[in-house]
Amino acid sequence: MKRKTLLTDCPDAKGLISKITNICYKHQLNIINNKEYVDHETGQFFMRTELEGFFKDETFLLDIEDTLPKGSEYSLVSQDERKKIVILVTKESHCLGDILMKAYDGSLDVEIAAVISNHETLGALTERFNIPFHFVSHENVPREDHEIKLIDIIKKYNPDLLVLAKFMRILTPSFVSQFPRKIINIHHSFLPAFIGARPYHQAYERGVKIIGATAHFVTHDLDEGPIIDQNIRHIDHTYSAEDMVKKGRDVEKTVLSHAISLVLEDRVFVYGNKTVIL
Amino acid sequence: MKRKTLLTDCPDAKGLISKITNICYKHQLNIINNKEYVDHETGQFFMRTELEGFFKDETFLLDIEDTLPKGSEYSLVSQDERKKIVILVTKESHCLGDILMKAYDGSLDVEIAAVISNHETLGALTERFNIPFHFVSHENVPREDHEIKLIDIIKKYNPDLLVLAKFMRILTPSFVSQFPRKIINIHHSFLPAFIGARPYHQAYERGVKIIGATAHFVTHDLDEGPIIDQNIRHIDHTYSAEDMVKKGRDVEKTVLSHAISLVLEDRVFVYGNKTVIL
Amino acid sequence: MKRKTLLTDCPDAKGLISKITNICYKHQLNIINNKEYVDHETGQFFMRTELEGFFKDETFLLDIEDTLPKGSEYSLVSQDERKKIVILVTKESHCLGDILMKAYDGSLDVEIAAVISNHETLGALTERFNIPFHFVSHENVPREDHEIKLIDIIKKYNPDLLVLAKFMRILTPSFVSQFPRKIINIHHSFLPAFIGARPYHQAYERGVKIIGATAHFVTHDLDEGPIIDQNIRHIDHTYSAEDMVKKGRDVEKTVLSHAISLVLEDRVFVYGNKTVIL
Amino acid sequence: MKRKTLLTDCPDAKGLISKITNICYKHQLNIINNKEYVDHETGQFFMRTELEGFFKDETFLLDIEDTLPKGSEYSLVSQDERKKIVILVTKESHCLGDILMKAYDGSLDVEIAAVISNHETLGALTERFNIPFHFVSHENVPREDHEIKLIDIIKKYNPDLLVLAKFMRILTPSFVSQFPRKIINIHHSFLPAFIGARPYHQAYERGVKIIGATAHFVTHDLDEGPIIDQNIRHIDHTYSAEDMVKKGRDVEKTVLSHAISLVLEDRVFVYGNKTVIL
Repeated sequence: MKRKTLLTDCPDAKGLISKITNICYKHQLNIINNKEYVDHETGQFFMRTELEGFFKDETFLLDIEDTLPKGSEYSLVSQDERKKIVILVTKESHCLGDILMKAYDGSLDVEIAAVISNHETLGALTERFNIPFHFVSHENVPREDHEIKLIDIIKKYNPDLLVLAKFMRILTPSFVSQFPRKIINIHHSFLPAFIGARPYHQAYERGVKIIGATAHFVTHDLDEGPIIDQNIRHIDHTYSAEDMVKKGRDVEKTVLSHAISLVLEDRVFVYGNKTVIL
Repeated sequence: MKRKTLLTDCPDAKGLISKITNICYKHQLNIINNKEYVDHETGQFFMRTELEGFFKDETFLLDIEDTLPKGSEYSLVSQDERKKIVILVTKESHCLGDILMKAYDGSLDVEIAAVISNHETLGALTERFNIPFHFVSHENVPREDHEIKLIDIIKKYNPDLLVLAKFMRILTPSFVSQFPRKIINIHHSFLPAFIGARPYHQAYERGVKIIGATAHFVTHDLDEGPIIDQNIRHIDHTYSAEDMVKKGRDVEKTVLSHAISLVLEDRVFVYGNKTVIL
Repeated sequence: MKRKTLLTDCPDAKGLISKITNICYKHQLNIINNKEYVDHETGQFFMRTELEGFFKDETFLLDIEDTLPKGSEYSLVSQDERKKIVILVTKESHCLGDILMKAYDGSLDVEIAAVISNHETLGALTERFNIPFHFVSHENVPREDHEIKLIDIIKKYNPDLLVLAKFMRILTPSFVSQFPRKIINIHHSFLPAFIGARPYHQAYERGVKIIGATAHFVTHDLDEGPIIDQNIRHIDHTYSAEDMVKKGRDVEKTVLSHAISLVLEDRVFVYGNKTVIL
Repeated sequence: MKRKTLLTDCPDAKGLISKITNICYKHQLNIINNKEYVDHETGQFFMRTELEGFFKDETFLLDIEDTLPKGSEYSLVSQDERKKIVILVTKESHCLGDILMKAYDGSLDVEIAAVISNHETLGALTERFNIPFHFVSHENVPREDHEIKLIDIIKKYNPDLLVLAKFMRILTPSFVSQFPRKIINIHHSFLPAFIGARPYHQAYERGVKIIGATAHFVTHDLDEGPIIDQNIRHIDHTYSAEDMVKKGRDVEKTVLSHAISLVLEDRVFVYGNKTVIL
């Protein structure tokens, strides 16, 4: 007996839940957990079905394909294989540290294949956890060449997900296009407020009473990708920009770790510039 | 075309989702929204299916009955009929006021059939909204007789739900048994903390840093019924018990109104001493 | 014995707390509550001192004036007089309703002098609470003339505060300049996100996972005034823009009512484009 | 120029703020930050004054002593010396890990002198951070002897604070009396709900919709000490007790780390069974 998850993303049609669950039943696969969502505005159907049983992937997926409308996306993902991530960082340790600790104690069921940085700062911390650390300086290197070096290292590890855990460099569309829907970033504001550089300093200038963090997929447009998770903390007039930076760490790391776990559990469907989370 | 919701609460069995959605499909009922939950510990299955189409209730329900295991509960509830509530209050107006305002502007899609109180205090407010107000004093009346009077009035209105919106009297099991699973109460603490009288004063004595509110079904055991919704507010050492009372009003009314809307939308399944909310 | 609050807003200087509290002590005024804040970046000092005793306002304020640096602002505000507000609304009732209910039960210690609207919709509700309602249509009237009519009515009531409780018209600088630091507005987003029209529809388009509300002073720049209070609610992909509108009501009304009570208790200092709340 | 904090905890009296700040002024100490609180119910006065200047501790404190009523507590604490903690753990790593990471990156300005455990589990993690780890098994040792061993080790380090970071042993009054007001614990429920063992399992049985964590000083009464900080997370019916354990980790560690920082910054006054946090 194995556990796999069927992911369906297709145009809505009559009887879809019935048809798909019928196929599961016919294949003697037990539904452990099922969630579906229909976007009635655009007529798109999403379903995430956790299954248990003896799988014959090919015949099962053929049946699924026969049933779904044209233009459907579907996949059957194993729940028994640990997923692999590569983490990109700069100098700040709180997000990386939280992922390291959660991988360490099993709160995040993930293999951290490597940590890559444009600074040496976090090398010692990473290596304490016996994880390869790659220092790739961006100094005196054309942006394009720097990214090519990064891509080379990343591709060697073939990760399921690339996590920007306070990686303070803007990635070019050319880099992003190498890892479609596979890069997530933590931005230290409640987007779309305070896009771009130094959001806490922008927040300080504006005099807001909340600060926040946003985990999102990275697309060609800076800070404009599909949002996975957001949260906030209340602040008051006594907070300097530096106090916000400090106070914001806990919410940044919690939001990022949560987003990672949602993606790794195959709960996040990207749909246009939005996410559906089942 | 009508909208109805099929509610299923039964022992889990293989293929249930498939079988139930098949019946919907066969009856040409479109599934607008579906949520299910299996309690794997006890093997109980819950499903809430919003349907649209031309219903032949009898034949549809016969098919459902044939399909479900023995001992199943199921029902088909219309979404087009406004539900009716009766509200019991004492002297405090914030919960009643919130329900009145939400019924007024349609935030709560409900008919308030009547308000009943053991004090006259809230009569004027109620009547401003053209809702019948019944004053039933508990003074110099045996508890049993008082409750019989209440029951008489309530039954005349035949409400779908009885809402205790800061009704500061303890109801006897004999009263409660007249309205099984049909009474909800707002308790002004995050239960199970501070059961019983004057929870804010208990909270003050204990020196907690949060206060809260709990909406729950009323059962024979005081403050022990199935919880529907809970929320909290942060406080600090500057709060007297009276400050907590004042600060608590917003969270009490929000939690109670939310619980009412969940129940009226048929989202709440009572299961043992817990609720499943779909 | 009376209660008054001394408000001080001045350039920071050595010994200010000591000097001001000395004067209170000398005048045999008991400090019930004191809060101060120094913005070390700009060197501005703020203090709010609740006093109890027999006040000789003139001699006390002369002593205060002698002590403070030049360019200081200070005032002595009575706590025993109920403040007066005028509320501007359009068609939505939830914010108005919350203020009406809170004034009714004393949660907000305020006199609602009048409600003014560019639609007739909320007249009946207002009058149920025996509050004057003024309908001033904006149709077929030049903006300037409409505002002059509003100003005329408002000035008759001489309110301490003007509350825009979902008033869906943009006010001109000429209107705003009539009531400096006396107009507060509720904007239905967590500013600075989604400035301008239809913020929930903008939020829907962007696919955010939180919605929020911001209470702020109104200045010449739309949605750019000093922020008093903000809060958010979590949402998910199932929310349409209309669902957000509905879900947002509770957070809008709670934030606005909270901001009103902060302002009426003289806790809010406006400083540049920010607020200091003591 | 140095920074020190004056802590005052005494019976309220007329002119206290004035008198104390006068002394600061006379000694040419600049007040960077001042917070005070009077518990009007019991007439107790608390003040925390951050000072900057050239300190003559003895004469300054003599002046303070002369000014305060009898029975006052006061102290002058340096802000330039890093405080020392000893951490007690059992097997779970999330709270320890968060403190280690926050000490590592400076989010917590603290020296972790040692980690002590009744299991070997967390030794490797601790030593990665170059912090001494002491394994003191409780097996086959009378409770009293085990505690004596712990006390011996702890006293060697002479910590400012003893942190129980998921230490799953109940400490005897005899142990607690060795470190009065110096032990803080994280309890994995929103106290006073779910006192004692296995709070998440109790929470599961009760069917609550929130889980939480409480950081408190340890006194002779289990889970009854003064509360420093509390927070909660929302859950739903899908959470098993094990899911709560997992979900609760982030709130536990955040609450504990926050409480540690409040105590180390000398912001927490213990007063009866409550805390005043300035």
